[in-house]
Amino acid sequence: MPVNDHADLLRDITAAMAAVRERQPLVQCLTNMVVSQITADVLLAIGAAPAMVDNRHEAAEFAAVADAVLVNVGTITDETALAMGLAVAAARGPWVLDPVAVGGLGHRTSIAIGLLDHSPTVIRGNSSEVIALAGAGAGGRGVDSTHDVLAALPAAQTLAVRTGGAVAVSGPADLVTSSDARGVLVESGHPMMQRVIGTGCALGAMVAAYAAVVDDPFVAAVAAHAHTGAAGAVAGQQTQAPGSFGVAWRDALYQMDAATIREHVRITAVEDLS
Amino acid sequence: MPVNDHADLLRDITAAMAAVRERQPLVQCLTNMVVSQITADVLLAIGAAPAMVDNRHEAAEFAAVADAVLVNVGTITDETALAMGLAVAAARGPWVLDPVAVGGLGHRTSIAIGLLDHSPTVIRGNSSEVIALAGAGAGGRGVDSTHDVLAALPAAQTLAVRTGGAVAVSGPADLVTSSDARGVLVESGHPMMQRVIGTGCALGAMVAAYAAVVDDPFVAAVAAHAHTGAAGAVAGQQTQAPGSFGVAWRDALYQMDAATIREHVRITAVEDLS
Amino acid sequence: MPVNDHADLLRDITAAMAAVRERQPLVQCLTNMVVSQITADVLLAIGAAPAMVDNRHEAAEFAAVADAVLVNVGTITDETALAMGLAVAAARGPWVLDPVAVGGLGHRTSIAIGLLDHSPTVIRGNSSEVIALAGAGAGGRGVDSTHDVLAALPAAQTLAVRTGGAVAVSGPADLVTSSDARGVLVESGHPMMQRVIGTGCALGAMVAAYAAVVDDPFVAAVAAHAHTGAAGAVAGQQTQAPGSFGVAWRDALYQMDAATIREHVRITAVEDLS
Repeated sequence: MPVNDHADLLRDITAAMAAVRERQPLVQCLTNMVVSQITADVLLAIGAAPAMVDNRHEAAEFAAVADAVLVNVGTITDETALAMGLAVAAARGPWVLDPVAVGGLGHRTSIAIGLLDHSPTVIRGNSSEVIALAGAGAGGRGVDSTHDVLAALPAAQTLAVRTGGAVAVSGPADLVTSSDARGVLVESGHPMMQRVIGTGCALGAMVAAYAAVVDDPFVAAVAAHAHTGAAGAVAGQQTQAPGSFGVAWRDALYQMDAATIREHVRITAVEDLS
Repeated sequence: MPVNDHADLLRDITAAMAAVRERQPLVQCLTNMVVSQITADVLLAIGAAPAMVDNRHEAAEFAAVADAVLVNVGTITDETALAMGLAVAAARGPWVLDPVAVGGLGHRTSIAIGLLDHSPTVIRGNSSEVIALAGAGAGGRGVDSTHDVLAALPAAQTLAVRTGGAVAVSGPADLVTSSDARGVLVESGHPMMQRVIGTGCALGAMVAAYAAVVDDPFVAAVAAHAHTGAAGAVAGQQTQAPGSFGVAWRDALYQMDAATIREHVRITAVEDLS
Repeated sequence: MPVNDHADLLRDITAAMAAVRERQPLVQCLTNMVVSQITADVLLAIGAAPAMVDNRHEAAEFAAVADAVLVNVGTITDETALAMGLAVAAARGPWVLDPVAVGGLGHRTSIAIGLLDHSPTVIRGNSSEVIALAGAGAGGRGVDSTHDVLAALPAAQTLAVRTGGAVAVSGPADLVTSSDARGVLVESGHPMMQRVIGTGCALGAMVAAYAAVVDDPFVAAVAAHAHTGAAGAVAGQQTQAPGSFGVAWRDALYQMDAATIREHVRITAVEDLS
């Protein structure tokens, strides 16, 4: 049974989870085609409302009414790249950047770096993506992280200070840090999450939903990671194969409560954030 | 146990369900990227054959051989908008228009209204979309209906008369009406259907499949709504969480029979269609 | 219980399955939007790593580092057609061509025939697609095969000789043949696989993953077909409805072992390959 030294944070997470269910934030997703269905399903499971509006004609119009915007560069085209720029410029609410495979591919790396000018509320990626986005090193291959999560801490801090928001580095444990030098490791989840496509990309959308209802981007990011990680832990108790795991994980996202998060999530402070 | 005052209609529904399974209509889908997989899976589950042909080079060629065409403007691009126009102009069979988020976004609203010139056999949307398509008011946000289903009756009637086909308004109860002033409310389904992406969009494809094998668009629309609603009711008896519900719903679509529809669907006449 | 006259081939299949799990080949997929999620999930289930990189700016850069490339023309656009050409020209490893609906639609037929110049390591399609690709006849409607698998043997042989690789014809039984005149029928699977979208397209991706770790394209193709077919047979023992079947099939892909393949797959030689 995990010991948590962050009772306040756990209370914040629970309150945020309830706020998503009550306010049902409308999340505009400009995301990759591989995960668009699972991303929408995950948003529905946690109580949010998805809308995949990613063409040049409508992206800005919709961003001006959406409660939050997700930008995920996983299968970027010229059309969606244009729409992403328009959406984040017009966004009335928070927006989240998921720099899929940034560092590994030059084209999307430039686009993602350009989007930083619009100060994403939260950046969520794996360690190699965050390091590359900060201009601090080369990325890994595809979406497989090749650096340890903590190795991305300096890069995450650099990005958080630059954007004034929060940065989350997903991995075996998830690192979340903020521009005001808070930092925690969120330990939860299950290895089988790596065998279901879109668990990471859908997490980016969850962060956007949480950011829509919570003022503090750091709390929003921690809450989303705790929610999905606890659901993964629950699913892993039921099945050890990816098809049924994906189903059980979505069920658990929907059924999540404070006690389950308390049982399955360990949050610890990260020292030495200067 | 529902009381049905439409024994003839129930018989027609059962016959239509059998006809889809026997004739396996080929349904060309020009639909949004979020729901393309679940739409194809649903068509396969009910016995139809899906084909997502939505590029400018092939859309018309395929529409000339497909048994029915579905046009869903959910993630419309310039490419797919062009292909939609070509497909409905070339369609040899019935075609269905699903005006996702029409009213909420200007670009797609003009495109959808333009497509009305090709007289869709059936229009299927939620109330705010149908009202906007009829030019009778503003739409809701995204795909969440903000008007009551019956409030859309005048707009649905206007569209049905204009197209000469049927119009279905999905909601807590589904309204189906036709150009010759028939109108029913189909009560069925389960609230969990709102937590699984694509149940509505896939219903549009089911309507197309039914319209391919039934001459009367009104009967086709009622049958498709009864089929999916009964499957939702069955799934809701098995599970109350969205991942497993989605699986159970697809299973129930495949296993549907006349007795289950009779048990779980209530159809009542709508008065005052002038 | 099947009798197998190919003990060596079964040993090769088992070794190939282990090699995929150990080496986790990175498979670049330029595939259709309908099946991109299930394709990625299937690659993850068998131990490979998917990456859907299909835009013109990144396709070649990624193909130069990917372990294998899949090209599936199911929902081809001008953008993806361009990216496909760039990817196969730059590919450092094997590549697989899945000619979805080739023969039925002129546009994609020319594109697919043009791609033959880059000598795909393996071609995987249904019989009408293989026949049309070889220029030997017209195709069927959509993705439904209208010719018997064995009727495609001459066309498959022609293509294998031309490309120097292997050609697989999927159907009730799967035919795999090679440029050096080997040929087998792989009998396995379950009829319910036809009711789950993407089982065929995902098989193309599995062939690419196997080709990345096995030098002999013929063995790679046979192994992938045996793996997915055995998983279908296992799933069919658990459920007879498509939603739960799709889940069980993915579970079985992940859990597959040599004994299960031996139990559920029958491989027989095809005579008269001249």
